[in-house]
Amino acid sequence: MILIDKENLDELTLGATLLGNGGGGDPYQARLMAEQTIEKNGPIEVLDLDDLPDDALLVTAAVLGAPTVIIEKIPSGQQYVYATQALGAYLGKEVGGIIPVEVGGMNTIIPLAVASELGVPCVNADGMRRAFPQVEMTTYTLAGVSASPMSLADEHGNQVTFNTVTNRIGERLVRSAAMNMGLANAHSAYPMTVAQAKEASIQGSIGYCLELGRLLRAIQRQEGGWDEFFAFTGGRTLFEGKIVDLDRRTTTGFARGTVVIEGFQDHSNVMRIEIQNELLLAIEDGKTVLTPPDLICMVDHETSEPITTEALSYGQRVRVLGLPCAPEWHREGMLEVAGPKAFGYDVDYVPFEGGTK
Amino acid sequence: MILIDKENLDELTLGATLLGNGGGGDPYQARLMAEQTIEKNGPIEVLDLDDLPDDALLVTAAVLGAPTVIIEKIPSGQQYVYATQALGAYLGKEVGGIIPVEVGGMNTIIPLAVASELGVPCVNADGMRRAFPQVEMTTYTLAGVSASPMSLADEHGNQVTFNTVTNRIGERLVRSAAMNMGLANAHSAYPMTVAQAKEASIQGSIGYCLELGRLLRAIQRQEGGWDEFFAFTGGRTLFEGKIVDLDRRTTTGFARGTVVIEGFQDHSNVMRIEIQNELLLAIEDGKTVLTPPDLICMVDHETSEPITTEALSYGQRVRVLGLPCAPEWHREGMLEVAGPKAFGYDVDYVPFEGGTK
Repeated sequence: MILIDKENLDELTLGATLLGNGGGGDPYQARLMAEQTIEKNGPIEVLDLDDLPDDALLVTAAVLGAPTVIIEKIPSGQQYVYATQALGAYLGKEVGGIIPVEVGGMNTIIPLAVASELGVPCVNADGMRRAFPQVEMTTYTLAGVSASPMSLADEHGNQVTFNTVTNRIGERLVRSAAMNMGLANAHSAYPMTVAQAKEASIQGSIGYCLELGRLLRAIQRQEGGWDEFFAFTGGRTLFEGKIVDLDRRTTTGFARGTVVIEGFQDHSNVMRIEIQNELLLAIEDGKTVLTPPDLICMVDHETSEPITTEALSYGQRVRVLGLPCAPEWHREGMLEVAGPKAFGYDVDYVPFEGGTK
Repeated sequence: MILIDKENLDELTLGATLLGNGGGGDPYQARLMAEQTIEKNGPIEVLDLDDLPDDALLVTAAVLGAPTVIIEKIPSGQQYVYATQALGAYLGKEVGGIIPVEVGGMNTIIPLAVASELGVPCVNADGMRRAFPQVEMTTYTLAGVSASPMSLADEHGNQVTFNTVTNRIGERLVRSAAMNMGLANAHSAYPMTVAQAKEASIQGSIGYCLELGRLLRAIQRQEGGWDEFFAFTGGRTLFEGKIVDLDRRTTTGFARGTVVIEGFQDHSNVMRIEIQNELLLAIEDGKTVLTPPDLICMVDHETSEPITTEALSYGQRVRVLGLPCAPEWHREGMLEVAGPKAFGYDVDYVPFEGGTK
């Protein structure tokens, strides 16, 4: 069991920002929500799946919308409780715990606050261990768990329940509803038993995120180095340089864009990163070097503070990190669910190469 | 009680086409569905509200989408049964009967077939006694009956349940979902008891539609005249002439347009009719002469066959009929729900003037 209190919430939030891969919504806002909950209800319990009965019902609790809107209008805690309870009522079952859909970005922290509000545990597991822009891009989908029935709620008391035959259709319908409900909504989905979650989830991801935050904070305080960070994650520095070109646009509900970085030493050494809410594809001197579901994270070169795609700016000096995705991703169907082609990129998956550059 | 068999289904369909006000989907397709049901289950019982227990649960069953799509892809009966049953399951109650949402267009006939499939009665009442393009434009809304919870289903087995705080938001959400589910979907809404329906509905509307069809068929067969028709409806001929201009476009999920008709005798005598799926606003020589919720119906001048907006064509010789709306519309809030301004027209409601022109 992990106890989340005001102290380690700081490291968890830092880790969540890094695992947001530039997207996933700014966790610092969700943090305020969690802080209030901790003040009211005390530290939040994060249990391992083994600590819960196999037949307990788990559901996700997440914000769904456009990061640009969510920043201005974070859904109230009440909305999440409503979405989650509506799903439980629809299923005619009591919700026994909250399982994060993505440990990465805002949706790392929100499940903690919702669990505390509902008086149920949050579990130390998720379906991405990073951020992805679409509901169906989870190891839950890979394992055949249906995202439906799922529930979407807004702050006015409007609530919609979806029952779709595939998770991809679910994503499309829930996205279009969110576009009509303000694009900052509470979403509860993927009802599954603890037994199913053991098969379908990435276990230990909250703990992983917390450790990532701890290691990054140590780097920032010059109490630790990248070596320890990479020893833990199996990752490496992909690139170091200065942003020389930046193109962002919001289309079809997503923030899309491209960022170009020029190497510090060799100006002809260039990395281009493609964005769809998250940093998704890294191309170095015309060669694709990192593809989803492996992770691209970007930090400020001096402060090692994670940079979200909204905060990218021309001239910024950055370090680009590559991290291997959770091993649970590597099973039948991974590329259909979260490989480069699932995002519309006509490139092949590049197996992750570790080792510090 | 009215029994709908293959014989009077013909007159009911004709009446429904006229009450479709040029929109509402072509009832001849829905008729095929009803014919099959009658062949299988026998004549369909249409009961008065007084024939049912006051606490029985009624829900609507309707097609929702764009007429242009519905014509090519009529939802299967199974889809309606699914939408209706899903709503019942959501409410945790047994559906005791089907109440039409609109007696006008396709949605006059569909409730009959669905009721027969479900083995429950259809009631002789509705919420419009004409066709309107939006879900919330009903006397149910006027009486404070919520359209939610409501259910939308497609032919693939996808189903969405909406719970919205106003019927107008319900319309917006269900419309956007339908746009992502093929725009020819089964919709079940307005759960209410028989006691509520007695307050909120237009009673006798199936009977009214049947009589309208009978009178129009008599005119077509030269066994009756417009005098009898107008004596029954309280309506009048608004205009007779030739279509000289026609502009139709499909925007934001609706078929919008304008049709201009020139008088037979006096060519400077012109009627312009504004369309939003249905014929909504009649302007004669610059003066607004008929506004919603009163009815504009158009028939071929020779054959007296109702003309849908899709079938309008240049040079067509037409008779434009004006009919007063059901008296149940005339209560507090009518203009907010279904007056000209509810459709975005900046004109005042014109009280209906009867009498043959």
